[in-house]
Amino acid sequence: MSENASWIKKISPEIIPPSLEDNTADVDRLIKGIKKSLQTEKITVDFSLVGVLTHALRKYDYHVEAILSEGQEGWRIIDILPSHNGHQIYGLAVDLGTSRVVVRLLDFSDGNPKDETSFHNPQIEIGTDILTRIHFAAQEGGLDNLQSLLIERLNKEINHLVKKHDINATSIVGMSVAGNTTMTHLFLGLDPYPICREPYIPVINKLEPIKSAELGLAINPEAPVLIFPNVGSYFGGDLIAGILASGMTRQSEISLLLDVGTNAEVVIGNRDWLMACAGAAGPALEGGVASMGMMAGPGVIDNVIIDSQTPKLRIRTIGNHPPIGICGSGLIDLVAQLFIAGMIDLRGKFVPARCKDLLIEIDGIRHLIVVPAEDSGTSQALTLSQPDIDALIRSKAAMYTILTTISNAVNIPLKDIRRFYVAGTFGLYIDPQSAIAIGMIPDLPIEAYATLGNTSIEGASMALLSAQARDEIFRIRDQITYLELNVNQEFMNLFSAAKFIPHTDRSLFPSVKVRTS
Amino acid sequence: MSENASWIKKISPEIIPPSLEDNTADVDRLIKGIKKSLQTEKITVDFSLVGVLTHALRKYDYHVEAILSEGQEGWRIIDILPSHNGHQIYGLAVDLGTSRVVVRLLDFSDGNPKDETSFHNPQIEIGTDILTRIHFAAQEGGLDNLQSLLIERLNKEINHLVKKHDINATSIVGMSVAGNTTMTHLFLGLDPYPICREPYIPVINKLEPIKSAELGLAINPEAPVLIFPNVGSYFGGDLIAGILASGMTRQSEISLLLDVGTNAEVVIGNRDWLMACAGAAGPALEGGVASMGMMAGPGVIDNVIIDSQTPKLRIRTIGNHPPIGICGSGLIDLVAQLFIAGMIDLRGKFVPARCKDLLIEIDGIRHLIVVPAEDSGTSQALTLSQPDIDALIRSKAAMYTILTTISNAVNIPLKDIRRFYVAGTFGLYIDPQSAIAIGMIPDLPIEAYATLGNTSIEGASMALLSAQARDEIFRIRDQITYLELNVNQEFMNLFSAAKFIPHTDRSLFPSVKVRTS
Repeated sequence: MSENASWIKKISPEIIPPSLEDNTADVDRLIKGIKKSLQTEKITVDFSLVGVLTHALRKYDYHVEAILSEGQEGWRIIDILPSHNGHQIYGLAVDLGTSRVVVRLLDFSDGNPKDETSFHNPQIEIGTDILTRIHFAAQEGGLDNLQSLLIERLNKEINHLVKKHDINATSIVGMSVAGNTTMTHLFLGLDPYPICREPYIPVINKLEPIKSAELGLAINPEAPVLIFPNVGSYFGGDLIAGILASGMTRQSEISLLLDVGTNAEVVIGNRDWLMACAGAAGPALEGGVASMGMMAGPGVIDNVIIDSQTPKLRIRTIGNHPPIGICGSGLIDLVAQLFIAGMIDLRGKFVPARCKDLLIEIDGIRHLIVVPAEDSGTSQALTLSQPDIDALIRSKAAMYTILTTISNAVNIPLKDIRRFYVAGTFGLYIDPQSAIAIGMIPDLPIEAYATLGNTSIEGASMALLSAQARDEIFRIRDQITYLELNVNQEFMNLFSAAKFIPHTDRSLFPSVKVRTS
Repeated sequence: MSENASWIKKISPEIIPPSLEDNTADVDRLIKGIKKSLQTEKITVDFSLVGVLTHALRKYDYHVEAILSEGQEGWRIIDILPSHNGHQIYGLAVDLGTSRVVVRLLDFSDGNPKDETSFHNPQIEIGTDILTRIHFAAQEGGLDNLQSLLIERLNKEINHLVKKHDINATSIVGMSVAGNTTMTHLFLGLDPYPICREPYIPVINKLEPIKSAELGLAINPEAPVLIFPNVGSYFGGDLIAGILASGMTRQSEISLLLDVGTNAEVVIGNRDWLMACAGAAGPALEGGVASMGMMAGPGVIDNVIIDSQTPKLRIRTIGNHPPIGICGSGLIDLVAQLFIAGMIDLRGKFVPARCKDLLIEIDGIRHLIVVPAEDSGTSQALTLSQPDIDALIRSKAAMYTILTTISNAVNIPLKDIRRFYVAGTFGLYIDPQSAIAIGMIPDLPIEAYATLGNTSIEGASMALLSAQARDEIFRIRDQITYLELNVNQEFMNLFSAAKFIPHTDRSLFPSVKVRTS
């Protein structure tokens, strides 16, 4: 990001000290100097800053640096500092997650991250899910309570960063915040209740940057806080950050962006158009359903290969610790390998002749021993049940149906997608080949897939550092056509067809082949 | 002022209630409706209003009227009301005088004044003059104290107006304030100290309108407060209001505007250019020096005619009460009549042969009996002393010198001025013929003179009601060339020449003729 493209910057205006011949007022004098430096006519200063500015101008004898931010109404003065004090100015990008908040400290001089930390969203103590928080907000004082929890915890993190790097809190002169629509409303203290009631309308879609003082943030009180806009109640600023970070709107070729959490959010398009939809893909993909499922962490199985001759399962765990469970990507690997080895059939049902003595029954339900008790980190066998597989298949079918639906809506076959971006933590671990093998994602060349990691924090950083990127998020917002997913007969038909491995229509997955023993 | 030209207005936007097909957020929906009504793309809403707006939109079921103000960044939402509630919206124009504050309540629907009141500036208790207040402001807490005194007193007046007319304080949705530079600084809580120290630089020359909440005013918290700009420490917003009210900047012919108080402020120009200066003309013109001088009021002599044959003084008093003193305009009349009757000479000295037994000596100083004790309302003779006349002559000489200096500076002889406007209370009472007779103002045809009264409140009202007028005050500010009056040899020469009645150069005053007895 070039420094020229920044919408927050520090300049050294030439200010001629007052004299009897030039009786321009202090503030007008400062503005005059800045206009000349920036070669612009549009400089504003908020009334709240007028007294402070004058005091500083006289204190520093008119030798000052000015920090400015650019917006719709031109450049606004944020602060002034004594000249040549060598102080850097910083910005904070924030990924406002429902469960986790990530904060990245950025140096405006070079645009590089100086630090990145994260903390559990303290609103979890009110409710882990969004809906509980929305209902809590509707109670007397509830909204204030939720907002305060978040702002205070964020301020604590900011204070920590400031101390750690020995910088002044007032030298943090800008912030950007990307979160889903509800989290953004709670951050701003706006009533989220209408979001969850028909017709599901948020209070606000887009805002001009707010002054940090209005939110009580522990940074420069005049710092602009850029709030990522939303498209609606179910398509928030976090996804717009993802689209920005993916770069899909800067390309002519058609890309698809998939962000998987509790919901699967899908965006298809290029620099000229964008269509988006979201739907419940089921928690199975996050490893939340399988009896041995868990979030990625040490000892968690994230890769499986089956030698179809034995059949023997070779597993890999995170950190090579003794296995204690399986995460979403490991589960997808496992089921893909089971299918390729012929140990489950195209409906996902165990094939006893192939599973041999790995197949056991517990309470009348078939389980496959993935890790025998003697090799397990929990001293109990890790098993995969038939219902675990059924749940994964429903999830993957829902996912593929959503992808098919949006592809049908824009009349572009999935096979014609040139870039397939996978965002989120899920995307970092997933093996596209396994996901293709179970028919969760389309059978594209492996090179078409790219995992992006935390695109919220990435997009938030980009928009804070560059005026072009900042403008792009609002263009993206205005450009998106949101496709409401109606669970109608057509959707159900597509869903039924996708409930096979990899799919009823095998011609859609030419690369997926079952090994013949 | 046509309603179309207003920069604050109430409209009835068409807002389509939300539905599953149209999930635009509440605030964005409102903005969309307003954009359509106003045929503009630039609508902003301050974050502080977002929560309130949403609540009101839902409460009134999307049938609302919107109050907006137009500024540099387009139209900003001030408030929304339920549709068809029949409520009017109002504005307040304020003339922020050093001694008196005038408040005019305006109805935005027709631009007519609904009421006008005034009160003593409560800062008088700190100091009657500006300089005392500036020094007081420099003390710990002094500035806050001065600002609070004024704002609280103004709020009291607003509450009174609101009750009297049975309107809601929130229906006052705009304010304009015209005052001198120091009074404006004190109103805004800005340090006035630099104003009185070389190089005499105010903190600020011009500001975007401030939100009333930022000043703690008892009107709609989102109402814009338009602050008249200043040209410098000694040329304030009150004079810019005067220029606006005079109309001189909307004419091609050359006009001159004279505002007389403790200082004489002079502006010359037309729609293409403006030059201004200010100088001490002496308090004699306000009736403050003569031993029997006083402010205009019942029983105060405001007109004098002398029958040169007797000599007998025929006086007129305000309200025809028994005479108790003389005001500035009466004093000018008196001295003019004395000169015309030959009772004083061209140096202003009493001519004993003409004054006859009206001339007495008190403590060795000559006095003229204006009203004998038996006719006086004070039961003592009202007299005019030689020093009283000398003081008036110095004042009138200073005034004429200032007029000559500015006329020389722009190279336009005083006789070529087409319109000569006199602003302020002084101007309301003065008889131009008498002022010409003593050589205080140039010998123009009487039709060229126009008295304007309180141009501050008039200009403040105009700028509040009309966008063109509002823009014009900033154009006036930028256009004025301020002429610093240097009391150099040339000035002293002009002053000496003007210390005669009417002037050393009689050809400048062809209409002034001494009666020959």
